Amino acid sequence: MNPSVYIGIDLGGTSIKMGLVDQLGNILHTQESPTPVKAGYHQVLKVFSQMTQQLFKDSQYEWKDIVGVGVGVPAFLDQRQGIVIEAVNLGWDHVPLKEDLERMWTVPIIIDNDANAAALGEMWNGAGKGASHLICLTLGTGIGGGVIINGNIYHGANGSAGEVGHITTNHQNGRSCNCGRKGCLETEASGTAIVLDALEQVKGMSTGPLKEEYDRTGTITAKSVVQLARRGDPICKKIITKIGRILGCTLAQMCYLLNPEIIVIGGGVARAGKILFDPLIQAFHDAVLPRVAENTSIVPAMLGNQAGLTGAAWLIHRKYTLDILEGQRQ
Amino acid sequence: MNPSVYIGIDLGGTSIKMGLVDQLGNILHTQESPTPVKAGYHQVLKVFSQMTQQLFKDSQYEWKDIVGVGVGVPAFLDQRQGIVIEAVNLGWDHVPLKEDLERMWTVPIIIDNDANAAALGEMWNGAGKGASHLICLTLGTGIGGGVIINGNIYHGANGSAGEVGHITTNHQNGRSCNCGRKGCLETEASGTAIVLDALEQVKGMSTGPLKEEYDRTGTITAKSVVQLARRGDPICKKIITKIGRILGCTLAQMCYLLNPEIIVIGGGVARAGKILFDPLIQAFHDAVLPRVAENTSIVPAMLGNQAGLTGAAWLIHRKYTLDILEGQRQ
Repeated sequence: MNPSVYIGIDLGGTSIKMGLVDQLGNILHTQESPTPVKAGYHQVLKVFSQMTQQLFKDSQYEWKDIVGVGVGVPAFLDQRQGIVIEAVNLGWDHVPLKEDLERMWTVPIIIDNDANAAALGEMWNGAGKGASHLICLTLGTGIGGGVIINGNIYHGANGSAGEVGHITTNHQNGRSCNCGRKGCLETEASGTAIVLDALEQVKGMSTGPLKEEYDRTGTITAKSVVQLARRGDPICKKIITKIGRILGCTLAQMCYLLNPEIIVIGGGVARAGKILFDPLIQAFHDAVLPRVAENTSIVPAMLGNQAGLTGAAWLIHRKYTLDILEGQRQ
Repeated sequence: MNPSVYIGIDLGGTSIKMGLVDQLGNILHTQESPTPVKAGYHQVLKVFSQMTQQLFKDSQYEWKDIVGVGVGVPAFLDQRQGIVIEAVNLGWDHVPLKEDLERMWTVPIIIDNDANAAALGEMWNGAGKGASHLICLTLGTGIGGGVIINGNIYHGANGSAGEVGHITTNHQNGRSCNCGRKGCLETEASGTAIVLDALEQVKGMSTGPLKEEYDRTGTITAKSVVQLARRGDPICKKIITKIGRILGCTLAQMCYLLNPEIIVIGGGVARAGKILFDPLIQAFHDAVLPRVAENTSIVPAMLGNQAGLTGAAWLIHRKYTLDILEGQRQ
């Protein structure tokens, strides 16, 4: 007989990642499949179903071993009711995801947003292991955030807690953000900001690696800027340094309010490593009182693109563990 | 026989406020006495003792009716151990307040910092009644903050959560703060900031109520600026409006992270009322996405200078209630 395990799903706008996760947060088997965004909601559910079948075929597990399924969704959602209120990248509007999956699979289902799932994954079995109070930032095209308090995701009044992408970081000369404001964290320190900074730099350049990249590909990606910075290109390093300083200063303000034990930073941009983290940590300590910061460490995420499915599985793990404790008390 | 009640103490740098508080958070009797700061720690404990005796004399209560005593202290402290680590205004350094009071009174003692106690008071029986997720700001000479999550104070990694006075609000032209940085919330939007703004204004004035106040008293207080603003003086109204805008914009950034149900604003400066709250709420909504702010209200504190002792009593009320629930489960 197999020990009980969880299924974690990280539903993205590009791909679906699904994994069997054990009770310690270790991933036993994974599946990945493109997200059929255009085919719509019901087709996504069908792909979910096919992926579980494949997962069971590849492993020795079957449905009777599965305690439940957790799903991370790139959406604004009603976590308790299990309703996806708005998922712009998926084109979903008010879909009862939890209810539909429970009908399909007849196991407990818990959903949460993708940034929250990633934060939980890092807390359970990644860079935040052992901590109870965390902030987790995911630096990609945009900037997502998850706030963990007392070992659980904190949702706030309506589920918007941790939506840090639109914190104003530049009141004076900020870029316009598609939210209608200026100087949002997302327009100043995300992958998108890196691209915009690099495009500005390229304008005045006649030579150099960044210019060559631009001439060769006709565009610039955040990934290429990060790679060039890692290879020592001074212009690209300067761009990453600037982003790091903005992030460090913004995290300092968050630290006054939340005094977290750990701040975990993940996402593609975090792959810049030391070039990003050194100025980030310096700017953080420049901007925060030593006493407030002395128990807070800033660390890179450890789980990469498996954080989301790990954290999704944790949602079920938590319920399972609490149910057992409750049973033992009675 | 009397119903069980709590004693709440708000220990300030100027005065000690003590009250008998019932299980609904209502204050039954109060005592106030100057804080013998110069006479030191043990003298403060003696005054505590004398005040309880007076409290019992004035009421029909006695020690056997008292469940425990909560104390709010203007200090950085180790809440669990009950040690006051540093209370600058009292000159205390690492004193075991909880232990000493438990020895003196032989009832349970819980201590917390004064801003946290004020936040808890407003949650229990004031402007935040019924809410689970609150931010409470106290605008006085400095700016104190308390963060309540899931109906309890959130302390963070080392007790610094909610210490919002040194959040940077003005990166470009901020005033120097005594923390060594520039543009802290406390230097830009507290009672001290109001005085500094008013003194700058007075320099260029030859007449007007503010100038008259200054000439008559040789100084300007935040209280007088607030009063003149309430009476319609345009210069003073402008000063309060500016403070309101800075506070509103800063609260917007906090809202992205914490998405609270209610933000309660108290302290002397909050007595400016509408003149402060109108620009504050306007600036808040200008700076925050509608979805993030739609379940957050900003309200003035209701308990005035009794918030601290009410919240101090709540610390014991919570313990008492949890103990009863735990007993019922066994």
